[in-house]
Amino acid sequence: MKLYWTPASPFVRKVMVVAIELDLDQRIEIRPTYWPHNWGFQTIEFEPDFVAANPVARIPTLITDDGVAIAESNLICDHLQSLNEVKLLMPESGKARSQALRILGIADGALEAMIARRAELLRDSTTQSNDFIDKLRTRIGRCLDSLNNELATFEGPISLPQIATGIACSYMDFRYPADDWRKERSHLAAWHAVFAQRPSMLKTEAAETPQHGSAG
Amino acid sequence: MKLYWTPASPFVRKVMVVAIELDLDQRIEIRPTYWPHNWGFQTIEFEPDFVAANPVARIPTLITDDGVAIAESNLICDHLQSLNEVKLLMPESGKARSQALRILGIADGALEAMIARRAELLRDSTTQSNDFIDKLRTRIGRCLDSLNNELATFEGPISLPQIATGIACSYMDFRYPADDWRKERSHLAAWHAVFAQRPSMLKTEAAETPQHGSAG
Repeated sequence: MKLYWTPASPFVRKVMVVAIELDLDQRIEIRPTYWPHNWGFQTIEFEPDFVAANPVARIPTLITDDGVAIAESNLICDHLQSLNEVKLLMPESGKARSQALRILGIADGALEAMIARRAELLRDSTTQSNDFIDKLRTRIGRCLDSLNNELATFEGPISLPQIATGIACSYMDFRYPADDWRKERSHLAAWHAVFAQRPSMLKTEAAETPQHGSAG
Repeated sequence: MKLYWTPASPFVRKVMVVAIELDLDQRIEIRPTYWPHNWGFQTIEFEPDFVAANPVARIPTLITDDGVAIAESNLICDHLQSLNEVKLLMPESGKARSQALRILGIADGALEAMIARRAELLRDSTTQSNDFIDKLRTRIGRCLDSLNNELATFEGPISLPQIATGIACSYMDFRYPADDWRKERSHLAAWHAVFAQRPSMLKTEAAETPQHGSAG
C-alpha cells in the first residue's frame, strides 16, 4: 500500500496510528507531500500522480494493494481494519458501537475544526475572519469538554475513538498551545498523558510539513 | 430515533435517503433546526437540546433509540445499517468494498467542498476570498469528473456511494446551477436523471432552511 502523507496532518496521523496498532505499518510505503502555506485558501500545484489518484486532493490518501485510491481517514481506516480482523478497533454492535460512533464523531469534529482554523489563520489578514476563528475555537472547546466528561464511555482497549481523541489533544499542543486545553479538563489531560506514551503515538509525533522538496 | 434536520443540508439528505432505502424512516422523528445565514462564519444561538446532544453542533445529528447522539453522516449511516442487515448499502469485502470506499470518499469530498463554498458565500464581501471559492469550485469539478469517468465501478444495486453521488449532483442543481455540472459529464448526467427519480430522492428534495420558526 502507499500513503500520501505529511508529518503535520492529524488525519494522516490517525491512519498511521491505526496502521501501527493493526501491525500493518510495514506494508505501507510513505509518500511525502508538500503543502505551501497557500493550500488553505488557493488551489496549489499538486504532484500529478497525487491529484490523479484522489480528485479531492487531500491527505491522507491511501492506495490499496489492489490499486484503489481511497480518500478520508475513516474510510481508509475501514479498509485497514478489513486487513486485520483479529484486533478490532470498534465494538461490533449494540450500544457499545453507538457510543464509539458518538465519540469518534466528536473527536473528528474537533479535528476538522482545528484544520479549518489553521486554514483560516493562513489567509492574509484582509480576508481573515476573527468571527470564524472564534466559531471554530468555541466548537473545539465544546468537543473537548464532552470528551472530558464522557471519558468513562471510551476507556478500555485501544479503539478508533481513543485514537482520534488522543490525536486531537496532541494537535492542540502542536498548533494551539495558548488555548491551554488541559485547563478544567483534568480527566482528559490525565488520560492523554498516558495515551500519548503508546509506541504508535510516539512514532508519529507531529512536525511541520516541509514547504518544498522532493519526495523520498 | 430523532434526527436534527433541515431540508437544505445534503448530509441530512444522505441520512434520510439511507433511512428510506433501509425502511427505517418511519422510526425516525424529524426535529427541524433553523440556521440564520451567519452560521457560515459565526457561532449562532443553538437550541439548548441540540448543542447539548452534539457538541460539534452540526446537522445531521441522530439520537439513537438508546439515547446516544451521533454526529456525521457516515457514522449515522453506520448505525442505521446495523438496524437493517438484510439490505446492505456497502459491499462487505474485497476490491468491491475498496471501490465503494473510493467513490464515497470522492462524493463526500465534493459535498464538503459545496458546503464550504456556501459558507464562504455567506460571509460579507470584506472577508470573502475569491481564491478560496475558486479552490472549492475546482475541487468539486475534479470530483465530478472522476465520478463521471468511474461510473461503471458503482452502477448496480443501490449503495451508499450512489446515494452520496446522486445527492452531490442534486445539490449542484440546488446551489450552483450556473456551474452547469452536466456539461461534458454526460455519463453522470444520464445516470443522475434516473437516480433522481427514486422515491427516496423524490421524498427528500432540497429546499431552503427556514430562517426562523418553532419546531413542528
